[in-house]
Amino acid sequence: MIGITLGDPNGVGPEILLRAYDKKKIMKDYFAIGDFEVVQFCNKYLNVNAPINKMKIHSDFKEGFLNILDIGILSEKEITIGQVAAKGGYASLKYIQKATELALDGIISAIVTLPIHKEAVRMIKNDFRGHTDFIAELCRVKNYTMMLVSDSLIVTHVSMHVSLKEALEQIITRRILEVIRLTHDAVINLKSRACLAVAGLNPHAGEHGAFGNEEIREIEPAVILARSEGMDVHGPIPPDTVFYQAVHEIYDAVVCMYHDQGHIPLKLLAFDTAVNVTLGLPIIRTSVDHGTAFDIAYQGKASIKSFCNALNLADRLVQQNKT
Amino acid sequence: MIGITLGDPNGVGPEILLRAYDKKKIMKDYFAIGDFEVVQFCNKYLNVNAPINKMKIHSDFKEGFLNILDIGILSEKEITIGQVAAKGGYASLKYIQKATELALDGIISAIVTLPIHKEAVRMIKNDFRGHTDFIAELCRVKNYTMMLVSDSLIVTHVSMHVSLKEALEQIITRRILEVIRLTHDAVINLKSRACLAVAGLNPHAGEHGAFGNEEIREIEPAVILARSEGMDVHGPIPPDTVFYQAVHEIYDAVVCMYHDQGHIPLKLLAFDTAVNVTLGLPIIRTSVDHGTAFDIAYQGKASIKSFCNALNLADRLVQQNKT
Repeated sequence: MIGITLGDPNGVGPEILLRAYDKKKIMKDYFAIGDFEVVQFCNKYLNVNAPINKMKIHSDFKEGFLNILDIGILSEKEITIGQVAAKGGYASLKYIQKATELALDGIISAIVTLPIHKEAVRMIKNDFRGHTDFIAELCRVKNYTMMLVSDSLIVTHVSMHVSLKEALEQIITRRILEVIRLTHDAVINLKSRACLAVAGLNPHAGEHGAFGNEEIREIEPAVILARSEGMDVHGPIPPDTVFYQAVHEIYDAVVCMYHDQGHIPLKLLAFDTAVNVTLGLPIIRTSVDHGTAFDIAYQGKASIKSFCNALNLADRLVQQNKT
Repeated sequence: MIGITLGDPNGVGPEILLRAYDKKKIMKDYFAIGDFEVVQFCNKYLNVNAPINKMKIHSDFKEGFLNILDIGILSEKEITIGQVAAKGGYASLKYIQKATELALDGIISAIVTLPIHKEAVRMIKNDFRGHTDFIAELCRVKNYTMMLVSDSLIVTHVSMHVSLKEALEQIITRRILEVIRLTHDAVINLKSRACLAVAGLNPHAGEHGAFGNEEIREIEPAVILARSEGMDVHGPIPPDTVFYQAVHEIYDAVVCMYHDQGHIPLKLLAFDTAVNVTLGLPIIRTSVDHGTAFDIAYQGKASIKSFCNALNLADRLVQQNKT
């Protein structure tokens, strides 16, 4: 059974859940974790008219319904469509907490998350860094990373939601090696092989130290260590070449030095279809690769592709875990 | 008349010139600037057998031939195919100097450059930063930038061949505004309109200062100033979204904050077809968007697409300058 968190109730999460259910794009074994009243309201508001089952506990699951494990925070009246609201932020955090709890207890086998709004969450939790970091904290895990998966490209990241200046400080051999290891294990699982590229940090990967020495000082040692552990790892490779090579199947995935190094090529190729997978957790978690899209919330326009892909990938990872 | 510099004699420059001539991919009004013996050797070595005319001065030009303005540095014996050599670096610099001189004197209307090898040049000029910087120095210009042009995307750069750390220091309002102005003028010239996007620096363009404040402190003021000058400029826009939007014609070009921000998406979409144009010079200069490819030099394998595109774009810019 997979648990789907509803995301910010004022964003596109509820309608994506409903429309994906309605279009029968997703398999049976899942339930959503969120506010029943929110889903019910959205169901009527957009005339989806899906049959919804309100669950109090996970054993209330019924076949043939869109099952919602009700967290009971937001009432219909408290929905503020398309708005950054503390209550929306609070509710979305509670959904995640519940889902993580269920996953850690083995009641669900994976979590798929719909988008939350960082600023809404920060209204009630001002040290909130992001969805992934929050789940990692709940799991008490420190070594984790974000992998983005599309049909033609897989990327992972040494750092995520920090300024580029701070990202530079995180370019250290130990951290790069951790991310290579996490990437290797995940890619082997997905593709049964893992020929990895590690991107450089500087233009042309620094041209032997001519502009920037992080390649020589931090990245090369990580690649050498990873190889000594038996992994098929190459680099540092010039950042403006490595993605073209990966897309042309020279590499199975690219370990990126900062958020945008991986996000720019991936989102260019797969804007609304990519899936975000958190590596390093004791649980399986995949996520849509887009935000709450408040500007189009409750209009029935949001693409369901990334969500369907996230759910399918979670399912695949669950099956692989069983074998 | 367009002048083509031969690039490093040991790289793919000579064969690209010959093969493009042989395939009649280029129009008549050009001559190459380089070593006659190098072109002659390559012509025989690869069995191209193009009719070559050795020019001593520009008035020696003959219709129906591949014209080479002979710089007389390298003899056939001094060619070291595929090798980083001081003599090759020295010769390639001399070709550029001669071409720039001819362009500044109005004898040629544009320069198209074939690739040089930075490390070969550094063997004889250790403060050499790059092709573009060298030409800008010869032209005594300080405000310039590199524009990359492909069919689907145009990007310019606030900084170029410096470490990412140093690139962060170049994110200052005055410099960003200069690059916006240069981009605006060039794009208006190419497309008769210029709706420009300015990329942010940090993930999600900093999310209102949550990670990094360069957007608020430096980029936004530059955008506001550019708008006050009447330009149609938008941003800062999240770096992982802006290229997708530009490719989908929401913007005509993207002003990028550092080398790889622009190079990663552009090279992913147009690996061997893009053209590099230097903006801000008193002369027209376009260039291939690839290196010397020593590993395949003198094998007749190198793609001529980027070169043909660079020559055609130079010709177009020359025609537009006349009107």
